[in-house]
Amino acid sequence: MKVEIITIGNEVLRSETRENNGEYLSRILTGSGIEPVRITVLPDDQDLITEEMGKAAGRCDAVIVTGGLGPTVDDLTRQAAIALFGGQTELKDEITESIEKRFRELGLQTPESYRDLARIPAGARVLPNSVGAAPGLALKYGRSEIYLLPGVPAEMHSIFQSFVLPELSGGDGEKKTVIQIFGLMETSVEERLSRLFDERLKAQISITADPAGIKLYLPARLVKDDTIDSLRKLFGSHIFSIASEKMEDVVIDLLKNSGSTLSVAESFTGGLLASTLISVPGASESFLEGFVTYSNESKEERLGVDHRLIGRCGAVSEEVCVSMAQGALKAAGSDIALSTTGIAGPGGATAGKSVGLCYIGMAAQDSVYCRRMQFPGDRYTVRLRGVYVGLDMLRLRLSGEKERLSKYIVTDR
Amino acid sequence: MKVEIITIGNEVLRSETRENNGEYLSRILTGSGIEPVRITVLPDDQDLITEEMGKAAGRCDAVIVTGGLGPTVDDLTRQAAIALFGGQTELKDEITESIEKRFRELGLQTPESYRDLARIPAGARVLPNSVGAAPGLALKYGRSEIYLLPGVPAEMHSIFQSFVLPELSGGDGEKKTVIQIFGLMETSVEERLSRLFDERLKAQISITADPAGIKLYLPARLVKDDTIDSLRKLFGSHIFSIASEKMEDVVIDLLKNSGSTLSVAESFTGGLLASTLISVPGASESFLEGFVTYSNESKEERLGVDHRLIGRCGAVSEEVCVSMAQGALKAAGSDIALSTTGIAGPGGATAGKSVGLCYIGMAAQDSVYCRRMQFPGDRYTVRLRGVYVGLDMLRLRLSGEKERLSKYIVTDR
Repeated sequence: MKVEIITIGNEVLRSETRENNGEYLSRILTGSGIEPVRITVLPDDQDLITEEMGKAAGRCDAVIVTGGLGPTVDDLTRQAAIALFGGQTELKDEITESIEKRFRELGLQTPESYRDLARIPAGARVLPNSVGAAPGLALKYGRSEIYLLPGVPAEMHSIFQSFVLPELSGGDGEKKTVIQIFGLMETSVEERLSRLFDERLKAQISITADPAGIKLYLPARLVKDDTIDSLRKLFGSHIFSIASEKMEDVVIDLLKNSGSTLSVAESFTGGLLASTLISVPGASESFLEGFVTYSNESKEERLGVDHRLIGRCGAVSEEVCVSMAQGALKAAGSDIALSTTGIAGPGGATAGKSVGLCYIGMAAQDSVYCRRMQFPGDRYTVRLRGVYVGLDMLRLRLSGEKERLSKYIVTDR
Repeated sequence: MKVEIITIGNEVLRSETRENNGEYLSRILTGSGIEPVRITVLPDDQDLITEEMGKAAGRCDAVIVTGGLGPTVDDLTRQAAIALFGGQTELKDEITESIEKRFRELGLQTPESYRDLARIPAGARVLPNSVGAAPGLALKYGRSEIYLLPGVPAEMHSIFQSFVLPELSGGDGEKKTVIQIFGLMETSVEERLSRLFDERLKAQISITADPAGIKLYLPARLVKDDTIDSLRKLFGSHIFSIASEKMEDVVIDLLKNSGSTLSVAESFTGGLLASTLISVPGASESFLEGFVTYSNESKEERLGVDHRLIGRCGAVSEEVCVSMAQGALKAAGSDIALSTTGIAGPGGATAGKSVGLCYIGMAAQDSVYCRRMQFPGDRYTVRLRGVYVGLDMLRLRLSGEKERLSKYIVTDR
């Protein structure tokens, strides 16, 4: 099953948008064992879109086109598809009704420009859009299926996941097993893999790394009955998932299953830890409260951190980090509390405390933990690393991995 | 000056790397007034690379190819270029010497595989690589110049900035003016633009929209002496920037300049509002504290929201939103406070309150504001929209745009 991806739009071509539909699609397709063979970014040029859509369909089994389906004058993909199919169109009342319903719910009149969206190439299937106005379309062209999806990422993801991916993965693709690891350097992961796979096999494993962890993609032919067990032995509690769920999903699941509640006290992460947890639907069952105590005064008033402690050790210190976690635990009445204090940069460094110095704390009734880290990277990266180190400490605690946590126990409190 | 970009590599095609050379190049080219007309991602397939490189060169003034220049067996771009130029090669001693010097400095022997890098298409220019081993190459093909650059981003950036960009921007490039707008639908922005520009001119303006606002990119030829003034009249206080700064940058600047302090009380945005503000370096001067009051209990304890008020109106209500903002103002002792409460979805809808229903509040000593919104989109999009509606209310207040804010004043409190 070979698939080409075409993303449309002058703003995409000029990188004037954060949308990266090509990358999203190729990642999900690859993870599902479907091979993306080409990605093309084209401008808003109707003739060119028609031509390239036809060529792509002639070369592969399916073409996914994103963008240019909306109601504005530079949305030309539907027109390009109509041209590719010889100009024959039909008017779909279901599209009109769905768009009118959407605007009615928002208390708005349907703008005239949206009426055109109901005119589609004759014979096309409508792929309903539950997130936005413009539906996706699917058309048979030669031996290939062309899928037209909106460019707005949330809408594209929804239609792709609901309709396109299920159709495509009926194919003969080879699934990949994803192993997710936290708390090891990429070079160290590579070294350990060499104990299990020879160089030829290892070269077939792709590895990606970012602040949320390291992902290994193993093609199915490499995964024998005992491979997962061997990897678990190799990486121990560093493995946080053998699926594509995120660290925050894992943590929220563990909280729910253990019936534990959580609060967080954040300084340098500044709400990013709370926000990452709350991004998981249903987080409200376990997440009670967050304190974004950015100023020293708020650390004192909200979390009961001693004014003199901040004076003596500085706000970026193990002592204050521990006191923040204990304060959040008490104030929120949660079972566990996480805390963060650090220097995200670019300013804020002092003598002996450089940009990237961060402390991550965790308090429960029976014990208190604190990790000192010196993170590389820019302001956002430092904050993101802080978030994931905190979530990983929580994961280790909730999954009973005492050994790795034990070295972070703060004993004299 | 029309440029095509080709990025090479199975790992790029499968999004197994974070490298995004296409995006980097298109952004820099666009910013320099050079038009990227197509971006293509191709697999490690020598014949295909040869073919597509030739086609691209036939269509435009310059082609930039990244990736596949290294010494490993899947590096095929140099071979593809040799094939495109009929197989004629020459051996460049300067390349061999530079590579040997690099390895010598690292205390290493030059691996045999690197010797091939010195064999290049006859007539190609060498673009020295000051960061890594493989040099870039430039070749004249028909009326077009083909630039071959390494795929490693740091190496590619260095060669591109030192050699390629200066050659290309000798051309007829044109800078663009960015106008950023908040609080209007994209269709409404287009309608207003029609009052100022005829269809032919309007088509030269590219428009992007996301929850953080709408961006208009105007090519310099469209910007006369009075154009910015006319646009200001057209969009009034909806314009929040005539540069590429973000809404949060604008807001933090306004807070600093007015010497005002801010606190936030968040429910459905769950830390995302605080985190967005704190992403701006130096936010600590103005941002005092955030309350992520996700549970009803925390709304009561931290912000003093009346238990009976939540019982009577529900946590997602104007009354509770206003009380949250007033509570944050008092608890944090800030000059202004923002609050959010809503249903981000996918769960949480109740009779009469559907997913996407959100209230955004703002309190100061002299007045209280609240906006009711029904946001479309998925959980993250709804939260992001909430964040930017809140920041925009703050911007209007701080920049003295009373008129648009006045309709959100809550009078009976």
